[in-house]
Amino acid sequence: MKIRTAIAADVPQILKFIKGLALYERAPEQVTATEDGLFRDGFGPNPFFHCLIADQDGVPAGFALFFFNYSTWKGRPGVYLEDIYVEPEFRGHGIGKALLKRVAAFAIDRGCERMVWEVLDWNTPAIDFYQAMGAEFMDEWRNVRISGEALARLADGVVAADEPTGSTEAAE
Amino acid sequence: MKIRTAIAADVPQILKFIKGLALYERAPEQVTATEDGLFRDGFGPNPFFHCLIADQDGVPAGFALFFFNYSTWKGRPGVYLEDIYVEPEFRGHGIGKALLKRVAAFAIDRGCERMVWEVLDWNTPAIDFYQAMGAEFMDEWRNVRISGEALARLADGVVAADEPTGSTEAAE
Repeated sequence: MKIRTAIAADVPQILKFIKGLALYERAPEQVTATEDGLFRDGFGPNPFFHCLIADQDGVPAGFALFFFNYSTWKGRPGVYLEDIYVEPEFRGHGIGKALLKRVAAFAIDRGCERMVWEVLDWNTPAIDFYQAMGAEFMDEWRNVRISGEALARLADGVVAADEPTGSTEAAE
Repeated sequence: MKIRTAIAADVPQILKFIKGLALYERAPEQVTATEDGLFRDGFGPNPFFHCLIADQDGVPAGFALFFFNYSTWKGRPGVYLEDIYVEPEFRGHGIGKALLKRVAAFAIDRGCERMVWEVLDWNTPAIDFYQAMGAEFMDEWRNVRISGEALARLADGVVAADEPTGSTEAAE
């Protein structure tokens, strides 16, 4: 088994993994991502995410997809693990753990103090697995999201453009 | 009241806001961020975060600090709002809402479909406020974190370096 950094040619396989994970998470209909979108967002000059692929005997068996976040309390970047997934036929051989270890090594290599992610509350095997690793559950924090029309309504009439003159004003 | 993009000279004020928010969130001892760290991470060539400052009659009254995340289901970047805070003496005049609106406008401007954040479960005024805006609460997702020694243990012995040869192998 070998873990490697994903390349643009992996995009179709990455989308398959994303769909496999969404199926496992009982929300397959929620995946509207496309190969074009993943290519544009992950493999351009300023990618929005990093991706690792685990190959078993040359066959893609799983992946981890992550990006940086930032802790203002720590004053340090962290790693947010968006997806980790191993195909059913490759489970039980430590591939998930190996992917997690590689993401953790990436985090430490980049000076991050933390790695965070989310888990569905019914996913007991994963919860037990994370707990055994020494992970903490931040259950006092509720996740909030605004999207679609509510987001558009919130932004309505507001100019988003940065203001280069801000620097002058701030120096006054 | 005016909202502007933060500049490097705002770093001391940003740290004050961060400490003010941590106090409100009953965890002031958890702030170990420094001015140097915020300067390095937020105002270099590849900043880890974006920051807006709300000035009331030229006095800094509040801030919002955020960065991009990525939804693999949507195949689109989103905005993660790490901090939003208004100083006690400036509350009740819509500054928090104005900051949120500017972050939402930033999100839409950058092609994001979502804005997400976290709220403490006892912070009822904020929860009500977000609900009235049309926000959803993703309570089936538990937040997991691994840090410090547990993170180091997980990464132990793993080489984090990207493998430029990966592209050759993947093309085979």
